[in-house]
Amino acid sequence: MLSKHQIKVIKSLAQKKYRHELGLFLVEGIKSITEFLESDYELDGLYTTQPIFESHASKTVTISEKDLMRISQLKNPNTALAVFKIPNHTDVKYNGLTLALDAVRDPGNLGTIIRLCDWFGVQSILCSTTTVDCYNPKVVQATMGSLTRVSVNYIDLEAYLKHASTTISGTFMDGDTIYTEDLPKEGVVVLGNEANGISESIESLVNRRLSIPQFGNSKPTESLNVANATAIVLSEFLRRTIET
Amino acid sequence: MLSKHQIKVIKSLAQKKYRHELGLFLVEGIKSITEFLESDYELDGLYTTQPIFESHASKTVTISEKDLMRISQLKNPNTALAVFKIPNHTDVKYNGLTLALDAVRDPGNLGTIIRLCDWFGVQSILCSTTTVDCYNPKVVQATMGSLTRVSVNYIDLEAYLKHASTTISGTFMDGDTIYTEDLPKEGVVVLGNEANGISESIESLVNRRLSIPQFGNSKPTESLNVANATAIVLSEFLRRTIET
Repeated sequence: MLSKHQIKVIKSLAQKKYRHELGLFLVEGIKSITEFLESDYELDGLYTTQPIFESHASKTVTISEKDLMRISQLKNPNTALAVFKIPNHTDVKYNGLTLALDAVRDPGNLGTIIRLCDWFGVQSILCSTTTVDCYNPKVVQATMGSLTRVSVNYIDLEAYLKHASTTISGTFMDGDTIYTEDLPKEGVVVLGNEANGISESIESLVNRRLSIPQFGNSKPTESLNVANATAIVLSEFLRRTIET
Repeated sequence: MLSKHQIKVIKSLAQKKYRHELGLFLVEGIKSITEFLESDYELDGLYTTQPIFESHASKTVTISEKDLMRISQLKNPNTALAVFKIPNHTDVKYNGLTLALDAVRDPGNLGTIIRLCDWFGVQSILCSTTTVDCYNPKVVQATMGSLTRVSVNYIDLEAYLKHASTTISGTFMDGDTIYTEDLPKEGVVVLGNEANGISESIESLVNRRLSIPQFGNSKPTESLNVANATAIVLSEFLRRTIET
């Protein structure tokens, strides 16, 4: 049974303001919750309609389907909802490749990008403060647990890149063909906003301008979705590490 | 002004059954409608709140914002909705690479895959009859006009592949690393269902088993989203055509 106050607090976590005031975020679905429980993330509370996750009984509240409907962000809530603590990422690791996102706004895109980083072994993502919050429930949902293995850090991207002593690659419509260029094994790769690409201030800091070429008769005004561009770019950077 | 009957007919096109009974589908948004008007697709009717698309005046009905809300499939309808005729694809073109989809169910994924085919110059997609309808409004929306340049055909995929005299590639968790294998310039590439991958009956017809390898410490049970897998697979097949 949940009190009105508890319901209000949990529902408030749909909003970035309250997530960061309270230092808490939502995870839904048994598979994702299991991955967070097995990770370094610290559990705050677990709300389930059935007795699962028994090793976390002290933090578990059994609730009705109706209460789950009330606190869930999903159309079809699935047995359990968990609240975890937002960690402090003070130690950013830069092994190999780091992805930087300049104002990626769509939660589904960020979620997919985090999942791709997990697949390709990219451990850190640097996000401009204008990038969608990675603890947004839609992002967490789309990462399918990958958020537990990829560190996402919100920083002043321009200030950071200005002082970075590494290769800064970025994708542009008019860059050099990514397929035939030598690519560094380490460094930062910047992907830009869905509508506008990489902003001018960040563009001026990029020292490797890359492009994913179009084939066939597609319209020259078309662009790739940023998540698909990330898939192709990471695939290109990482496959080179196999061949050598 | 729209009659109740007109509203009912247009709204019914959200459902596959009525789309195929009437041979009509919906396109929303000025950019997408413009691309369909400039293509071989035949316009049935155009419903706009403002006088745009003046060269199609005879088929245009000016409607109120309220009526647009009624007939739209979008949360925020944008000025215009068009109804186009579903074409008969009797002549499938097989130049270069053809994509085959085995039970891809998510409209967003199919839309993204059509857009990727457009980018990479893949002219034809063969879909199992269990694949989501490409005239589903969410698919049309996600293709952003690419559906006008890529032919999508629903067939008995197993029967077709059984008699295809070409290389049939497919992606599997245990296939050969796509990055280091020789890849054919022509043939069919099969991508499978979101949850279950390629079905057993289709798998037995695949003669090139490929795999996108994982890097780093991602969980071995993870899989790539089918749209991202398509992005990486098409990128790999097409980049080889540059290098030679």
